[in-house]
Amino acid sequence: MPELRRDPIVGRWVIISTERAGRPHDFFQHEPVRQPPMSLCPFCPGQERLTPREIMAYRPQHGEPNMPGWTVRVVPNKFPALQVEGDLDREGLGLYDRMNGIGAHEVIIETPDHKDALADMPPKRIEDVLWAYRDRMVDLKKDLRFRYLLIFKNHGAAAGATLDHTHSQLIALPVTPTNVLAEIDGCRTHFQQKERCIYCDIVRQETGDADRIVAENPEFLCLTPYAPRFPFEMWVLPKRHAAYFEESQKTQFELLARILSESLRRMNRVLSQPAYNFILHTSPLHEKTGEFYHWHIEIIPKLTQVAGFEWGTGFYINPVTPEESAKFLREAEI
Amino acid sequence: MPELRRDPIVGRWVIISTERAGRPHDFFQHEPVRQPPMSLCPFCPGQERLTPREIMAYRPQHGEPNMPGWTVRVVPNKFPALQVEGDLDREGLGLYDRMNGIGAHEVIIETPDHKDALADMPPKRIEDVLWAYRDRMVDLKKDLRFRYLLIFKNHGAAAGATLDHTHSQLIALPVTPTNVLAEIDGCRTHFQQKERCIYCDIVRQETGDADRIVAENPEFLCLTPYAPRFPFEMWVLPKRHAAYFEESQKTQFELLARILSESLRRMNRVLSQPAYNFILHTSPLHEKTGEFYHWHIEIIPKLTQVAGFEWGTGFYINPVTPEESAKFLREAEI
Repeated sequence: MPELRRDPIVGRWVIISTERAGRPHDFFQHEPVRQPPMSLCPFCPGQERLTPREIMAYRPQHGEPNMPGWTVRVVPNKFPALQVEGDLDREGLGLYDRMNGIGAHEVIIETPDHKDALADMPPKRIEDVLWAYRDRMVDLKKDLRFRYLLIFKNHGAAAGATLDHTHSQLIALPVTPTNVLAEIDGCRTHFQQKERCIYCDIVRQETGDADRIVAENPEFLCLTPYAPRFPFEMWVLPKRHAAYFEESQKTQFELLARILSESLRRMNRVLSQPAYNFILHTSPLHEKTGEFYHWHIEIIPKLTQVAGFEWGTGFYINPVTPEESAKFLREAEI
Repeated sequence: MPELRRDPIVGRWVIISTERAGRPHDFFQHEPVRQPPMSLCPFCPGQERLTPREIMAYRPQHGEPNMPGWTVRVVPNKFPALQVEGDLDREGLGLYDRMNGIGAHEVIIETPDHKDALADMPPKRIEDVLWAYRDRMVDLKKDLRFRYLLIFKNHGAAAGATLDHTHSQLIALPVTPTNVLAEIDGCRTHFQQKERCIYCDIVRQETGDADRIVAENPEFLCLTPYAPRFPFEMWVLPKRHAAYFEESQKTQFELLARILSESLRRMNRVLSQPAYNFILHTSPLHEKTGEFYHWHIEIIPKLTQVAGFEWGTGFYINPVTPEESAKFLREAEI
């Protein structure tokens, strides 16, 4: 059973999940991740038996589950970081706090086509992926053991993807991750002082300045943040205040798909198809953040090698200004 | 001039340092870092002219500066992230805050011998490196523009080292890094509630439990923390309460050198000489943290590839329990 443990000083929870671990040499014998041949790809149609049984799928022809005919398919992660069955069982051990590693770990297979990349899919099909995120969130919200639903995408081996076939992941957590908590605290403080959402303030100021804007449509803004940790880091924000991703309007999903597609294609053009991560930041499940939090997506191209230093210090040195990267991205011909 | 910018939501400062940056292709054309041949290593004796002029050096025979004869040598970083000359010049830009990138960026060359690794040097010579840290800190503390002195080591290309010749770095910052602030806040809260230092509580509890201890001597403890972010993460803590590294007693430097040497050799034995980072966490310069903060060193072997996800979420999945890694480290034959 995986375990969640809390650092007593900074309050950060980590998952200790030893399912896949073995002896220490598992950690230093770095073989490049070997992709299964396409004929054995567990995310390809016709090979549905290679994944655990599906949780949901979009099937335009309404066929049988676990058979071909789907456009988006959601399955449990075969090597889950958390376990969905069981009770939470929280306990203290002297200074320390732990709980059972209860949670869900799902994979959203974004397309049946092995060769597609999310960036190159028609916006209509990206929209379906966003609907799948939303549908899973609405469903998992009913499970009162969960506090946070983390949706993210690793694209490319350098960004942590272990399978090429394009997919996203969802982890339902019994705790809220540190970075989300820090954002929520910052937003709450700003709101208490000014009665305004800080992300709404950012949208206003950035729309005025315009020099960090990458793309824009009637509902969304893609920008490079003022103080980015990484070269070419991008944020996609709804222009109108909204704390909960899953409560977006139908038109908004359509326009989000469009701006995501555009932003990723601009990134691919400027940076030659980099590995990247994106992370959906949305409200925790059982907190009243509606007035002051503002959901958004952070896109982080994986360009630089340095890691432990930034991890260890929380201190970032970025060799490109966001104004410069926004200009490159904005002016890219796509 | 580099620039410091503050994220308005979470308060994180980042350095935007464009000195070395060029066009976007600089970021995606990843050539493996090319080491200069040993005959051109700027950190080797006889090649002192290849670095900026030295700030200090230990020369047992008291010879000329910038000439061979040194055992530890401190020079300005040739490609500094921050610039030492100038005024701080803080300003607000609407929601945002910035200041000039004033600071110091120094390199501590740990040995004249190109082939040495810190872990394999005699403890007496590691002690000299620690004295160099301390001497530089005492000196830089006099510069009232600085708020924090960050000392760290990147060992191996995978951990961000660009030169093989073993060295550490010191960055003097006009702000305190986020992770240090988070620790200080956590320690302050604990102290306010209990009138005790939380790290002292950890030392007590860990000494009792004993199953996360890697090494111990009369003044120091090396342990794997209860909620580690990374496999085989280690912390080295003074057993007695102490907020400021640079105020350590002479005997403590000697015993710190011994436990560092032992811990790194245990790590090398178990993990086959991994790339690693270590980071000294000590008190900020102008804050009264004496009662509640406790300096320590965090050692992070660079074993796993995944990066953007952890960066983006502050959420860590660790495939090894600290009890297991402590056992491997403790039982390693060195």
